[in-house]
Amino acid sequence: MTNTSIESKLPTIEKSELFAEKNGLKIELLYLRHPSGEGYEYTTFVTHKQAVMVLAETPEGLFVMNEEYRCPTRKVLLSLPGGCVDEGEKPEEAAPRELFEETGYKAERFIFLGKSHPSPGNNPQETFYYLAKGAKKTSDPTPELCEIFETREMTLEEIHKRLLKAENLDGHVTTALYFKLIRNV
Amino acid sequence: MTNTSIESKLPTIEKSELFAEKNGLKIELLYLRHPSGEGYEYTTFVTHKQAVMVLAETPEGLFVMNEEYRCPTRKVLLSLPGGCVDEGEKPEEAAPRELFEETGYKAERFIFLGKSHPSPGNNPQETFYYLAKGAKKTSDPTPELCEIFETREMTLEEIHKRLLKAENLDGHVTTALYFKLIRNV
Repeated sequence: MTNTSIESKLPTIEKSELFAEKNGLKIELLYLRHPSGEGYEYTTFVTHKQAVMVLAETPEGLFVMNEEYRCPTRKVLLSLPGGCVDEGEKPEEAAPRELFEETGYKAERFIFLGKSHPSPGNNPQETFYYLAKGAKKTSDPTPELCEIFETREMTLEEIHKRLLKAENLDGHVTTALYFKLIRNV
Repeated sequence: MTNTSIESKLPTIEKSELFAEKNGLKIELLYLRHPSGEGYEYTTFVTHKQAVMVLAETPEGLFVMNEEYRCPTRKVLLSLPGGCVDEGEKPEEAAPRELFEETGYKAERFIFLGKSHPSPGNNPQETFYYLAKGAKKTSDPTPELCEIFETREMTLEEIHKRLLKAENLDGHVTTALYFKLIRNV
């Protein structure tokens, strides 16, 4: 798929400037110039460039889901095990690490499902999605202090019921499920 | 579904503090206390509380998609018409407004598909998804200077081909498609 018509409309980023930073979360200012010559500014968040999310499936076909307290939202959300890709780490290494740390599950194999930018209008972060086949609990999880959740195995029907309620959802769940569906894995 | 076991583990947010703000994008510090008495800090982004995304379908069953330049990512992404819900506006009002402003399309009816938090670990923003049935182009779009995209009608098969490439995707696309699928609309 070519984007020939849009290529000629793209601006140049002449400068990016750090406006504020706290604990790895940044606000940046981008200074852009249209091909027409007109200049404008754009404000964006910046944090870890990459994250992973894991849709883990047990040998019985159940999915390993978290009910996770996300303090920015003040809610407990239906979510997936996952987190940021560490410096020097590859997404395919982060996926089993995050699954194990958060849930105590290990899997027979990890299948790359796809990747997308969950909130590209204000954050460049890209999330890599993996299906973990043959997932089994092998030990207790070792969450960090700020990671507060309950892990449980759910059928796809239970997940759908919850999605149809349209309350307290992490959007990574639906993206992972759609990627799984179209890959037919 | 009850979350009785997690309720007893939830911390209290004792204080939230603005660390920095630029053009409506904020970094906030949350001061939390676990039921055990242990205190900790959490840093989060904050911006518009609500956004909308519109999956618009023509009478011929084609989807109105954007190839949109998202300067935070430095990429042109496959995305949906959508944007922030304005102060005093309802999500169901923002959906037709954003569709029309960005694409020049109007629709016969809007069906609420669901809502989710696209990036709840660092941003409380919640996105409301709508299916716009009977969408037709009635005029030229009126995008803002920073909104750079090409709109085109795509079959579901073309969208799937693009998703399977796993390149340059806005995660709102997959979430909208999964909600549409399970609602069977």
